[in-house]
Amino acid sequence: MSEFPSDIILHNDHKIVFVVLDGLGGLPLSKDGKTEMETARTPNLDKLAAENICGCFDPLLPGITPGSGPAHLTLFGYDALKMPIGRGLLAALGIGFDVSPRDVCIRVNFCTLDANGQITDRRAGRISSEENQRLLKIVRQKLEPPKGVELFLETVSEHRALMVLRSDQLDDNVADTDPQALNVPPLPAKTHTGQSSKTTEIVNGLVKQIREILSGVDSPANFMLLRGFAKMRPIPSFEEKWGCKAGAVAGYPMYRGLARLVGMELVAGPTEPKKLAAAAAKHLPDFDFLFVHFKYTDKTGEDGDFQAKVAQIEAFDAAVPAFVALKASALVITADHSTPAKMAVHSWHPVPVLIASELARPDDVKSFSERAMVHGGLGRQLMRNLMPLVLAHAGRLTKFGA
Amino acid sequence: MSEFPSDIILHNDHKIVFVVLDGLGGLPLSKDGKTEMETARTPNLDKLAAENICGCFDPLLPGITPGSGPAHLTLFGYDALKMPIGRGLLAALGIGFDVSPRDVCIRVNFCTLDANGQITDRRAGRISSEENQRLLKIVRQKLEPPKGVELFLETVSEHRALMVLRSDQLDDNVADTDPQALNVPPLPAKTHTGQSSKTTEIVNGLVKQIREILSGVDSPANFMLLRGFAKMRPIPSFEEKWGCKAGAVAGYPMYRGLARLVGMELVAGPTEPKKLAAAAAKHLPDFDFLFVHFKYTDKTGEDGDFQAKVAQIEAFDAAVPAFVALKASALVITADHSTPAKMAVHSWHPVPVLIASELARPDDVKSFSERAMVHGGLGRQLMRNLMPLVLAHAGRLTKFGA
Repeated sequence: MSEFPSDIILHNDHKIVFVVLDGLGGLPLSKDGKTEMETARTPNLDKLAAENICGCFDPLLPGITPGSGPAHLTLFGYDALKMPIGRGLLAALGIGFDVSPRDVCIRVNFCTLDANGQITDRRAGRISSEENQRLLKIVRQKLEPPKGVELFLETVSEHRALMVLRSDQLDDNVADTDPQALNVPPLPAKTHTGQSSKTTEIVNGLVKQIREILSGVDSPANFMLLRGFAKMRPIPSFEEKWGCKAGAVAGYPMYRGLARLVGMELVAGPTEPKKLAAAAAKHLPDFDFLFVHFKYTDKTGEDGDFQAKVAQIEAFDAAVPAFVALKASALVITADHSTPAKMAVHSWHPVPVLIASELARPDDVKSFSERAMVHGGLGRQLMRNLMPLVLAHAGRLTKFGA
Repeated sequence: MSEFPSDIILHNDHKIVFVVLDGLGGLPLSKDGKTEMETARTPNLDKLAAENICGCFDPLLPGITPGSGPAHLTLFGYDALKMPIGRGLLAALGIGFDVSPRDVCIRVNFCTLDANGQITDRRAGRISSEENQRLLKIVRQKLEPPKGVELFLETVSEHRALMVLRSDQLDDNVADTDPQALNVPPLPAKTHTGQSSKTTEIVNGLVKQIREILSGVDSPANFMLLRGFAKMRPIPSFEEKWGCKAGAVAGYPMYRGLARLVGMELVAGPTEPKKLAAAAAKHLPDFDFLFVHFKYTDKTGEDGDFQAKVAQIEAFDAAVPAFVALKASALVITADHSTPAKMAVHSWHPVPVLIASELARPDDVKSFSERAMVHGGLGRQLMRNLMPLVLAHAGRLTKFGA
């Protein structure tokens, strides 16, 4: 998007409501079947699609399945392929940790070492989240970080945790200590080119203490493997980029974190469609752009539960009149990626895009489905084109050149 | 495709069968007529198209007609516009010459010089291939290349031949000696900036001998013009690029050469559809990716023989069940470029793409034709996107980012 001529952005009072139905796109369970969207009864979405313009957009590039981080950054108009978010940072965002620019975020796996210090289970028998909490409490009490370094340890789930080191002295050029193999010892912390650094020395000192602390505890989890060392890189805020004061209505930590990463203000956190619409109604007056995140289409897709996903799409459809009633200059209904129940994971399949606006050029799409939206007036294109199209449909761009 | 994040490639046992119907796309003979694909009766291809996903892809860029070299490199996922293959190298690949990295390949045209040494016919009256062979035999016997330089001369057809110089001392920075004009003398060999070099000195010495040898021969072909000096540049192999061990089932030298250029293993060379399918069945267990090349759709197109091209498409259709029976994770049926019988040459028209896979999102395409596939779920896009899409449909890519 380096090509976008940002001097054409207008600052006016035209509102944009940008609704992401996470993992919306799907697949039929059998070749002759219907997708989740085609199966769902969605009179409100069908009407909106029929009256406006639709398309099918590739989140990153054709064929590439995005994680939630890159998928949302692309929705927000960033070139996510060129600005990967470190996994540690994403883990921190995912549990709602309040990341500062001084932090190095690290994914932690509790593991099991044998008497010779070799890894026998990289996930410590998938201990429970409660056991994880119990162990972290002990480690927190005993661990002594070096002067000038603050340390945070947070449970994620089961054997997974988050470690954050906060200091001015740190960088994130640290390779994983997880050798991704059994019957070998954990790796010492080194830079990605195998060197030592101030940060690796600090990490190795902490790891040594952790080993001693956990060796005295009765648990299969007697050590921690560290992965995905990542700092938050400064990126231009959404408002700097697109000239819109932006708020986020999102209930799940990961998406709240992603919104905050681009400088959006977190205004509410409901999860049900009608509550999302009510929150949008309440907060829209304070913003130019409101990001609304609906999680359950993805959650049911990842569960591989086709009928539950259908039900969630129908539940969202029931809230559509409330979103339309906001009378935004542009109402966008789209997804970050597809999560077909058939696959029970994120997929590369392009996602439906609907832009409702007085300025939308109607096309032949009559229903809210992948198969129909392939023929939409927006065509098949890259998701990174969406934000300029949305701003245009909201009347927030002027012409380029005379 | 420099953007493609190669670390998402998975190495697993999912098979890809990639069938290229050379020159498949066509045109109706009259405005209200049908294309070759629409005319052909293709029940098996129609069924495959109806159950899977289709699109229309531009080989290089919209409007650009590709030669066979760039067209195939693009199919294989290379940026062919940025890595042109020298014409001499393509000529060598075209006749199946076993090119080594030390070789400079040169296209040769027999021509006619008058008594003043001026060109009167750049093609020597289009001598027969037999006359070409007779003359090369004489030249081979008498020509004495300098020490350390091996020289090969091979008939291509009519007035066209191939010269290959093999030595460590050579480069391919040599401009054509063909002035592309009549009643002027041939040009001496020089570099592209008009300088002399070790290589141009060697070439000029050989040319001088050739002139003497041919002046004593009774033929309109009394000299050789040299064009398209080219060495084989190292390019990343298909396996390095896409993580697939690749084999090629191709009967024609040009395509065998192109497959070898990207490091595919040549496993068989039949030309008939059912024999291609049988060869694929035999060799698929040894590879992740099998490139299968069918030539006759292009050959009949280049002959301008509409009905013969229709018959070849139907002949291929009869072999489709045998390809489906291979049960590859992804079966691709596409083309390198269009060769409409109406034009009797390669054209720029986008080519049909069909990806058959359990993970293909069905679209509204019901028949195997250009007109139908324009509306396919893959849309109209650039051919360089095909390989990522194929890998995705075969389950050989993991997600990008978390």
